Amino acid sequence: MANPLLDDRDVEFLLDEVLDLSTLTTLPYFADHDRGSFELVLASARRVAREVLYPAYRALDEQPPRLIDGAIHVHPRLKELWPRVRELGLQVATRPSEVGGLQLPTTVFTLATAYLMAANLSVYGYVGLTQGAAHLIEAFGSEALKRDYMAPMYGGAWTGTMALTEPQAGSSLSDVTTTAEPTADGHYLVRGSKIFISAGDHDLADNIVHMTLARLRGAPPGIKGVSLLCVPKRRLEGGKLVDNDVAVTGMIHKIGWRGLPSLALAYGERGDCRGWLVGEPHQGISYMFQMMNEARIMVGLNGVATASVAYQESLAYARDRPQGRPLGARDPATPQVPIVRHPDVRRMLLRQKAIVEGALALLVRASWYSDLAQHGGDARAQLMLDLLTPIAKSFPAERGFEANVLALQIHGGYGYSSEYLPEAWLRDQKLNSIHEGTTGIHALDLLGRRAVAKGGAALAAFAAEVATTCDRARAAGVDAAWIAEVTRGVEVITGLTAALGARGLAGDVEAMMLHAADYLELCSIVAIAWQWLELAAAAKTGRRADRAGFYQAKLAAAQYWIRTELPRIDHLAGLCRSGEDSYGRLDPDWL
Amino acid sequence: MANPLLDDRDVEFLLDEVLDLSTLTTLPYFADHDRGSFELVLASARRVAREVLYPAYRALDEQPPRLIDGAIHVHPRLKELWPRVRELGLQVATRPSEVGGLQLPTTVFTLATAYLMAANLSVYGYVGLTQGAAHLIEAFGSEALKRDYMAPMYGGAWTGTMALTEPQAGSSLSDVTTTAEPTADGHYLVRGSKIFISAGDHDLADNIVHMTLARLRGAPPGIKGVSLLCVPKRRLEGGKLVDNDVAVTGMIHKIGWRGLPSLALAYGERGDCRGWLVGEPHQGISYMFQMMNEARIMVGLNGVATASVAYQESLAYARDRPQGRPLGARDPATPQVPIVRHPDVRRMLLRQKAIVEGALALLVRASWYSDLAQHGGDARAQLMLDLLTPIAKSFPAERGFEANVLALQIHGGYGYSSEYLPEAWLRDQKLNSIHEGTTGIHALDLLGRRAVAKGGAALAAFAAEVATTCDRARAAGVDAAWIAEVTRGVEVITGLTAALGARGLAGDVEAMMLHAADYLELCSIVAIAWQWLELAAAAKTGRRADRAGFYQAKLAAAQYWIRTELPRIDHLAGLCRSGEDSYGRLDPDWL
Repeated sequence: MANPLLDDRDVEFLLDEVLDLSTLTTLPYFADHDRGSFELVLASARRVAREVLYPAYRALDEQPPRLIDGAIHVHPRLKELWPRVRELGLQVATRPSEVGGLQLPTTVFTLATAYLMAANLSVYGYVGLTQGAAHLIEAFGSEALKRDYMAPMYGGAWTGTMALTEPQAGSSLSDVTTTAEPTADGHYLVRGSKIFISAGDHDLADNIVHMTLARLRGAPPGIKGVSLLCVPKRRLEGGKLVDNDVAVTGMIHKIGWRGLPSLALAYGERGDCRGWLVGEPHQGISYMFQMMNEARIMVGLNGVATASVAYQESLAYARDRPQGRPLGARDPATPQVPIVRHPDVRRMLLRQKAIVEGALALLVRASWYSDLAQHGGDARAQLMLDLLTPIAKSFPAERGFEANVLALQIHGGYGYSSEYLPEAWLRDQKLNSIHEGTTGIHALDLLGRRAVAKGGAALAAFAAEVATTCDRARAAGVDAAWIAEVTRGVEVITGLTAALGARGLAGDVEAMMLHAADYLELCSIVAIAWQWLELAAAAKTGRRADRAGFYQAKLAAAQYWIRTELPRIDHLAGLCRSGEDSYGRLDPDWL
Repeated sequence: MANPLLDDRDVEFLLDEVLDLSTLTTLPYFADHDRGSFELVLASARRVAREVLYPAYRALDEQPPRLIDGAIHVHPRLKELWPRVRELGLQVATRPSEVGGLQLPTTVFTLATAYLMAANLSVYGYVGLTQGAAHLIEAFGSEALKRDYMAPMYGGAWTGTMALTEPQAGSSLSDVTTTAEPTADGHYLVRGSKIFISAGDHDLADNIVHMTLARLRGAPPGIKGVSLLCVPKRRLEGGKLVDNDVAVTGMIHKIGWRGLPSLALAYGERGDCRGWLVGEPHQGISYMFQMMNEARIMVGLNGVATASVAYQESLAYARDRPQGRPLGARDPATPQVPIVRHPDVRRMLLRQKAIVEGALALLVRASWYSDLAQHGGDARAQLMLDLLTPIAKSFPAERGFEANVLALQIHGGYGYSSEYLPEAWLRDQKLNSIHEGTTGIHALDLLGRRAVAKGGAALAAFAAEVATTCDRARAAGVDAAWIAEVTRGVEVITGLTAALGARGLAGDVEAMMLHAADYLELCSIVAIAWQWLELAAAAKTGRRADRAGFYQAKLAAAQYWIRTELPRIDHLAGLCRSGEDSYGRLDPDWL
């Protein structure tokens, strides 16, 4: 059987047994939708993922785009399949009908796109970037920009990019030096260099719209002087598209996502690169950050999807591959058994499952909060989305990578070859701990901003949400010890955050933040344990008689996470509190 | 500055301040050696590693060997540099002078070869395999085989392989089906298929000697019916080399070690493949296992070396790359600081250092025990070597891989490109958890055999060795709390092993072994903590006035490991004892 990418039963379980979809469908924005319309979206995404994107995965990985005379040429296979992806319309699916959208809940969109990502991360990259770029114009741009640049992106004719990073600045956006000089004609003349611009050039579409961070003349230094500009590859002049002086100056040879070019771009080498200000001057970073949550959830989902496809592959392999015999039954005259019979192989499978399905549940939950916050005016949901975002972004990247390593390991020597795909997914996955903010940056963001924001309101909301899950679990008859452990996890976070926050308030920010990485890991473990408790509650009261084994496996994975991972939080909290200072006081000159 | 591969100061520290070399040099076997002769070996290995092997790394990674008309052609660069490697004579360095060896201590050999592995794992692979193959004949072969096949390997003219694995059997050597039919002429006719045979063909040397596991006609089934045969690529007939009917049937496209071909071989397709029995019939597995410790230590060293070169690269990068500003000093008018100023980057560096240098110390210690056992008749040293081998093999593979991931992460977006080398080392490293026994197999070996062998004598020896280190640390003035924690670690292992062993004795081997992976990790953490305590003691009393910072860094890494990793053992021991059964009782059909 071909790799299913995601387990359809998981998707149904989340939509039908974990969540109460009527909470969404009774909101006016989603009024035209019901479970049937969701299924149509899911079915078409699943079909394109399985029949079109997945079969092209290897070809795109093996033969990356080529840079010829300053232009990127993608794999012919990608040009062939691109119309099938475009016509899904996912780049506009969640948007309002007035911009051509379907007003689809992000919750459903997340599950639909997960199939596409699992099938072919690179191809979905073009869609995701276009969605983000168009959404920036929708949210902050003028009517003219919406008409001229947003509409063709949402319509699927053009694609978009996020042009933030510069060679000398990396993650430090306050050090952006690209400039935008005002002209009397309303546009700006843009000059500068960008790097790591995904989909920054290609021959899939007539035009590419670069949402670009730059400084207007006279802007203040640092982050408060950065503006957002819309800088197309080709600008509209007199109803025609003319070259806009954005040059490809190099291609990065990435180790994964090899269907999606990552480029160095030069703006205005001929002095003729025009950009249009989006929104107000100097607000570029704040605009970007409003979109960033979306992008980060998407990166988290990339991580889940890439771990999922590998998990499915290793599960099938472990069931098929005969090797060795059970302990204590070593008679060489008996046939070898499939390796799934070995407990350590099941350990590696269950750990993957716990990571993949726990993280998928978290991503769907974050999407759920996004829907409730944006369309239900739910303030607690907004707090939850803000709090969960660094976790939803970095947990799938870090632990998803570990899951990918386990999938390779299960394949043994074959896993170490490019004849099998686990090594390719491992390469793909590694990017997710780097782009859209490294894991280290998300750790600082979680502890330094999100967890302590609004006088602890976010953590109070988290405690309340977990308490609701505990009530459900109790009612469903889930092991009381599990419920107690998850509850204690929340208390550990709350107490620790207060203690660390006090250090910050006392002026010692370094001491507060020294173990931010451990804090992020601790919060991630608890958040995933919370999701497993929710999944366990739904499994315990599972309604489908044909899925008894499916529910049993869910309970096994919940047990695994709560018994094996959750107890680690005490040590992590101890490190954070103790301020263990080995690297804190390390003088780099000693090394 | 070019990558140093290993820090020379570490090598000097181990030889001059951690160990007492006179213990070795007073043994008769090493009587011709002193610190000066060791330095000559180290200096020549280091020079070839830095000047010859490292500069060729990228070329060999980018262009793997090619299979043309059944023959492997290696990269021209490899053919050029091969004489420089051969002339080091490392394949025979530790062997007795009567077979052309230098009688070099394995302790020194390990450090010398670590440079070569760090420079170019693939190239060293040819040497290491040749050494192992020749050593098998030296130990078990007839005088004729020694003359005809061992001597040219030790002399550097030919190379060798270990031909164990078969497609249908993988790690399950009891399922080997290659056959050897006796003839009246003293040789056997061999037929069968092998896979994953590293260096199984190439054009570096005139001949290749395959040390091959096969079944003689009428052999009993299973592991007790497997014999060892010497099967050359070309056999000697009338003083000439003639083709011996070993065909290359395929090449595995490995993701790393790309200078070293991994091949599928077919023996006797024309019915004319001759092999010579090595030692007694049906003793093949036991012979192989006597060499296996050596091979496993070598794999562990591969892991250390590959993590070391990446650590050095990321350290240099972190010192050079300016990005961002310290927390609480965010004035954008100030210059950006090197990323090594960010505590989380130092965390990633110190974690790498703790893994790399802790593991290097463990490998050197294992080599030390090997020297004392083989040439000093030291029974405790033999017990220690046997006990430490699964740890010395798998810790560098697993945690070394994690270190390689951190080196890539420190490089940010650049680390995700093949313009930088960390991704290549990451690919190289991944093999080490798979070949020479997967980590899962070593976990079973440690708990099921080595830790419980000889009525607990191995663990008693371990406790005694750690106690000696504690004495030294106490005398040196190392923090008493560290000493207490390491001592407690040994107690945890001892108590846990007794408890698990009792389950096995009571007949429940499955329950005993269910958490073998956690047991291996626990023992590894304690073993590395023991080494860090030893290194800390030496650093605390460091004799070189010019290395105060170097000693400080050692103490920081010791503190990191003892405070951050060592406390994890309680949770791991709890899992082993509790028999947490989520994957144990998991029915694969549920998934």
